[in-house]
Amino acid sequence: MPEPTSPLDAAGLRHRVQAALESFLAEQTAVLAAVSPDLAPVSAAVRDFVLDGGKRLRPAFAYWGWRGAGAEDTDEVIAAVASLELLHACALIHDDVMDDSDTRRGQPAVHRRFAGLHRAGQWRGDNGAFGRSAALLVGDLCLVWADIALNTSGLSNDALRRARPTYDQMRVELMSGQYLDVLEQALGTGSIERALHVARFKSGLYTIERPLRLGGLLADADEELLSAYSSYGLPLGDAFQLRDDVLGVFGNPEETGKPAGDDLREGKRTVLVATALAHADAAQASLMERLLGDPALSESGVSALREVIVDTKALQEVEELIESRTAEALAGLAATPIDDGAREVLRQLAEAATARSV
Amino acid sequence: MPEPTSPLDAAGLRHRVQAALESFLAEQTAVLAAVSPDLAPVSAAVRDFVLDGGKRLRPAFAYWGWRGAGAEDTDEVIAAVASLELLHACALIHDDVMDDSDTRRGQPAVHRRFAGLHRAGQWRGDNGAFGRSAALLVGDLCLVWADIALNTSGLSNDALRRARPTYDQMRVELMSGQYLDVLEQALGTGSIERALHVARFKSGLYTIERPLRLGGLLADADEELLSAYSSYGLPLGDAFQLRDDVLGVFGNPEETGKPAGDDLREGKRTVLVATALAHADAAQASLMERLLGDPALSESGVSALREVIVDTKALQEVEELIESRTAEALAGLAATPIDDGAREVLRQLAEAATARSV
Repeated sequence: MPEPTSPLDAAGLRHRVQAALESFLAEQTAVLAAVSPDLAPVSAAVRDFVLDGGKRLRPAFAYWGWRGAGAEDTDEVIAAVASLELLHACALIHDDVMDDSDTRRGQPAVHRRFAGLHRAGQWRGDNGAFGRSAALLVGDLCLVWADIALNTSGLSNDALRRARPTYDQMRVELMSGQYLDVLEQALGTGSIERALHVARFKSGLYTIERPLRLGGLLADADEELLSAYSSYGLPLGDAFQLRDDVLGVFGNPEETGKPAGDDLREGKRTVLVATALAHADAAQASLMERLLGDPALSESGVSALREVIVDTKALQEVEELIESRTAEALAGLAATPIDDGAREVLRQLAEAATARSV
Repeated sequence: MPEPTSPLDAAGLRHRVQAALESFLAEQTAVLAAVSPDLAPVSAAVRDFVLDGGKRLRPAFAYWGWRGAGAEDTDEVIAAVASLELLHACALIHDDVMDDSDTRRGQPAVHRRFAGLHRAGQWRGDNGAFGRSAALLVGDLCLVWADIALNTSGLSNDALRRARPTYDQMRVELMSGQYLDVLEQALGTGSIERALHVARFKSGLYTIERPLRLGGLLADADEELLSAYSSYGLPLGDAFQLRDDVLGVFGNPEETGKPAGDDLREGKRTVLVATALAHADAAQASLMERLLGDPALSESGVSALREVIVDTKALQEVEELIESRTAEALAGLAATPIDDGAREVLRQLAEAATARSV
């Protein structure tokens, strides 16, 4: 799909978010450089990570939450919504440390990048440990920078004060959801209901409904509009995470930026996997239990698991769930009291967030 | 020393900070419980960590920064300064993951606690990896909670807006300083100057000068007072971290809450170690290079390293440096335009922060 027709680029958003992030990170790079020239690899890692990838989904929902509330397009709101990419960077960088992932967005994960620096410099100690420590701190820094970017966006103090509780709630939910995700892998309950709950907290809420609401609150939206946003954003967040789970198993690595089958190697307890387990016969269940979460899982192991997921109709059921949640979201959107321009972009964003290819 | 005579307890501070933390953490525990009952171990870990230990040094400096500026004692300022303990908790929990430390404050480190939960539950996967992931997320949560505690302290928006840039600067310095500390261990330069720089950023600033300034800014202190605070706080921060380095090698484990010689096993490149290396003869230098950073270092290895640190006069030099920086801080304090009550507490706090036994 050519760039200009993407709803993610409506109002020139992608380009403007990029410019806002470049400008913010240039300032922060200077701050770090004043502390020590040894921090150059830290700022470079964040710049490369944040500027070279990402669909800017969260800024888009926050921006259209603002526009949908009738507020004017300003550079300040762009700076504010761009901050969500820094929060997302923290989540991904820490996630990759926890999952010991090799790649992200088609590049080495941040902890691998720092391990490589350690190896190239022939420094003391273990290069994996150095990489993990550096990535932990780089992620922490992104969490703080996200906060700074929002607070220094130039939006009024009243606007920031209105949005703050939702911003904080979103951050707490994100960390909580990530913990529940790690716990679910450890427990391996195989419960579909639990997997849906985890999906909502670890990603659904903070990708769509919370950013949308944040934009609305920044623009002083009333309760009626915020509640309409929720009726669109909550089911769409579920659909988004379910699509992400499907892509994690069946996605094209060139599009996802992660090796094929990585979610299976990590033993992620997604709704897709839980559904397959629920429908599996004894042979299929035993194959799943044996292969899921095996870090050394081969291509043929990945194929065998995919086959079970298809044969048990888990894939079909999850696709139907994505469809019904998306339909629910679009029904919510139809009843949302906003102008037709914003509605049309949000309709297209719903498609983009749940599309079969990314 | 009996409790009531401690400057850390002047104005009943310790008790009131404790109460503020208890109340805040009770609220946040309820928020997590509403997300999922499975988050109970997360909130319990933070409560145990934050409520069962810590000298409350950072809240004390922030509080007296506020009082020194002539502002009234209120519950709101207590809630605000208590938030620094949550930021500190994030730093310590993540630090223990990076250093793979067993204990903190005389208890199992947070990652060990979660590894124990995993082991006891006979969950899937590696219990060490589960513990590290959980501690990473618990630390992230503490960073966010610190922010929430400050923002919801009840202080005016004007006050919070004045203090925000210093708060943000402090958080960026903390993460940066931690990275420089990890890097210094990896590089092993042995430079005294570099070790001093790292010490200032990783701990000196965020323990004393920044909290003091934060309290001052919350109370609308003028530039003259803030600058006087710096003339006291900056050298005292250096002295504090130098004392911490000495305690890390020579301290009583019952008082430090960490095993004796842990800093030596971790190969920390402190000013103390750098000074010893600078003065070591060939035999002493080779012994240090061999033993420093050996995770399996025995008691006798620890003793041998201590002997070198004493024999090279590194200990004596660092003690002299602590003394001169503390004297510089006290001279700065004498010239600080505050009332004599606050001055006397800050004088005693300088002693407490640099005392030979904790």
